[in-house]
Amino acid sequence: MKDEEKFQKIISLAKRRGFVWPSSEIYGGLSGFYDFGPLGVLLKENIKNEWKKVVVFQKEEIVLIDSSIILNPKVWQASGHQEEFIDLLSECPKCKRRFKTDDLEENLCPYCKVELLPPKKFNPMFKTFVGSSEKTAIETFLRPETAQGIFINFKNVIESFPKKLPFGIAQIGKAFRNEISPGNFLFRIREFEQMELEYFVKPEEAEKYHQFWIEERFKWYQNLGISKNHLKLYQVPKKDLAHYSKATTEIHYLFPFSGKFEEIEGIANRGDYDLKTHSQFSGIDLTYFDPFSQKRFFPYVIEPSLGIERVFLALLCEFYWEDKERERVVLKFPPKLAPIKVAVFPLLSNKPQLVSLAKEIYQNLKKEFICAFDDSGNIGKRYYRQDEIGTPFCITVDFQSLEDETVTLRDRDSTSQIRIHKKEIIEFLKEKLK
Amino acid sequence: MKDEEKFQKIISLAKRRGFVWPSSEIYGGLSGFYDFGPLGVLLKENIKNEWKKVVVFQKEEIVLIDSSIILNPKVWQASGHQEEFIDLLSECPKCKRRFKTDDLEENLCPYCKVELLPPKKFNPMFKTFVGSSEKTAIETFLRPETAQGIFINFKNVIESFPKKLPFGIAQIGKAFRNEISPGNFLFRIREFEQMELEYFVKPEEAEKYHQFWIEERFKWYQNLGISKNHLKLYQVPKKDLAHYSKATTEIHYLFPFSGKFEEIEGIANRGDYDLKTHSQFSGIDLTYFDPFSQKRFFPYVIEPSLGIERVFLALLCEFYWEDKERERVVLKFPPKLAPIKVAVFPLLSNKPQLVSLAKEIYQNLKKEFICAFDDSGNIGKRYYRQDEIGTPFCITVDFQSLEDETVTLRDRDSTSQIRIHKKEIIEFLKEKLK
Repeated sequence: MKDEEKFQKIISLAKRRGFVWPSSEIYGGLSGFYDFGPLGVLLKENIKNEWKKVVVFQKEEIVLIDSSIILNPKVWQASGHQEEFIDLLSECPKCKRRFKTDDLEENLCPYCKVELLPPKKFNPMFKTFVGSSEKTAIETFLRPETAQGIFINFKNVIESFPKKLPFGIAQIGKAFRNEISPGNFLFRIREFEQMELEYFVKPEEAEKYHQFWIEERFKWYQNLGISKNHLKLYQVPKKDLAHYSKATTEIHYLFPFSGKFEEIEGIANRGDYDLKTHSQFSGIDLTYFDPFSQKRFFPYVIEPSLGIERVFLALLCEFYWEDKERERVVLKFPPKLAPIKVAVFPLLSNKPQLVSLAKEIYQNLKKEFICAFDDSGNIGKRYYRQDEIGTPFCITVDFQSLEDETVTLRDRDSTSQIRIHKKEIIEFLKEKLK
Repeated sequence: MKDEEKFQKIISLAKRRGFVWPSSEIYGGLSGFYDFGPLGVLLKENIKNEWKKVVVFQKEEIVLIDSSIILNPKVWQASGHQEEFIDLLSECPKCKRRFKTDDLEENLCPYCKVELLPPKKFNPMFKTFVGSSEKTAIETFLRPETAQGIFINFKNVIESFPKKLPFGIAQIGKAFRNEISPGNFLFRIREFEQMELEYFVKPEEAEKYHQFWIEERFKWYQNLGISKNHLKLYQVPKKDLAHYSKATTEIHYLFPFSGKFEEIEGIANRGDYDLKTHSQFSGIDLTYFDPFSQKRFFPYVIEPSLGIERVFLALLCEFYWEDKERERVVLKFPPKLAPIKVAVFPLLSNKPQLVSLAKEIYQNLKKEFICAFDDSGNIGKRYYRQDEIGTPFCITVDFQSLEDETVTLRDRDSTSQIRIHKKEIIEFLKEKLK
């Protein structure tokens, strides 16, 4: 169900509390670009860590690389992006607006109601120029995907880390697409961060590993705490496949802005398209030599690929909770995703003994967890503020603390409190935050 | 002392073992761009973590943000980058090569020996275009520094995280400069990653905090294990200051490629230049209201700013050690910087019992540390390979291990070995890797 009101509240909370701001806002913004505030950086980092843990570090056969954003333009000729990565756009002769031809139901400008011009090809790669002289500068592009940085380093990786198939090369980094109509907050943006895995397999095992990664990735979202009812697998019809893909299954999330299931990740079987074309274009042998069969061939590649900002947005939507009973808003993040793990308060800010004990506890916790200290306003308001950003635990130092060194520890979701000795806090939280 | 031979060996090691590769190498590369391999990613991550720990997370008054690479072009008008961030270049009329006018000793092309043309202004910002229609696309630039992304979000930060002066906003991210002559491996590159802190202070306290951060940052490099003899502070003369700077002190490292002290970090007093110009250009009030004095003013800002790749390069140079006595090459990283913390070997790869116990230990260690498993070639070669990438500890499972569950644990630098029970390894390493 579409819920535009909820979506607007989420955007407003994200901005107000320092998760996400429109980029260059003091200059009127720049469509399709966003900046991440202090809480946004922490949430993004947690998402990356969950991915790295499961996709890279827990696996023996997967390594992480970090290639540059600007690559030699031949990469984009070879990959097919220069020719095939295009949108057809129809322009209005009157207002000069452009529309994706595929999205149009009739060939009339919806604003001016006049016939649109015949469609033209548009390549959404951002162009730039490398070199200081206009005569010799090289025209190239900001990468529209991190994947190509992996394929062109295939040989470097297997030479420095000899691996047997199947093995994977993963990458996290920025990518850029000059989208025609950026919108729906973080859903369609022009500068975004990808997490991609290229998993190289024997051609005859491609389908098996395609299934494996579809299941593995589908599980990952549920392990982040997303309800299974809000997730769906979608098999992309043959006619809609990208130029490099043999088969693609997408993971969709039910977003409130449309009330529909929309893509958050794609798991593609890219076949041997990329290694083969780079081999042909560069003249460098990018085959793999199999020591068992003594054969040389191009591996197939299975690619789980996602944009972090879409997952970020899905998580905000999933965990936004209006607790009517207690008149509060809660981001009900699982502890591992919460930007701040614990907040420490002195009951009153004008009692130096309370403040000093609270500070001491805060300083100790800070060595172990990302935490906050707050002594402004009344205690109810402080709880409210932490609930709204999803902090799972709040610790309050009160007058009893001065007597027996215990503090109250409040659980975000139930709001129930226990008393705990200050020496036991770290162990208790470590257990809960596991 | 210049040591070109050592420098070439470091570059070769970095490439061969998967720290750094020239970007787009299969297409002949792209001058000034590099890709980071699996070990390079881990080393970079460790450098970032050390910085974040000391500069952000241990401080109460500093937050981290992440702004976009492409900003509204008005940002670069206001910041002065469009007008002032320029190089003067003299072009050879014959070969069309361009030279930095300031670097020339005589006005003759060193290749063609003909008189150079009169100098022209060159702005090293990479240009790009946002928007799908040629008529309406906006020309803008890839950020040449992350700092501006902080200044334009000053108001957003203080509204969502009310702070009292002094406080800081930090950022880690890519920046781009179309350098005239990239070179010396990672030293002068066109795409790099910055770590910047903008520390906002009362104007009358600017000098005090400038000194504070100079000392703090100088200490940081020594805490990474860099010898004090290889570090130097350099005060930039007034005439060489950047357009925004009131005073800048640089931290220099003694690099082998030149045998000279070269910049790895700059700590600038930017005064109120940035907030003031953005305030004027945008019409948005970017002053700070001081609750004590009840006055409104533009804070001054102290900026420690570094490029991660230069630190990365300095660390490779600092810890590269040819151990003539034992005929080996060692990257003598302190454990906290080492990409891989521990490697596990079965003494022989064709004894299933040794392999299975080694795998078991490896799987357990993997939950705690970044570690490697190696069963290829003889044990001496495996030690050699780990020494060369700086792994501080190697564990070998031998025949005695099958009897009493102890393993040998070898120290990289001394090569001395102890026997330790398999159950004690994690605690032992945790202590050593602290």
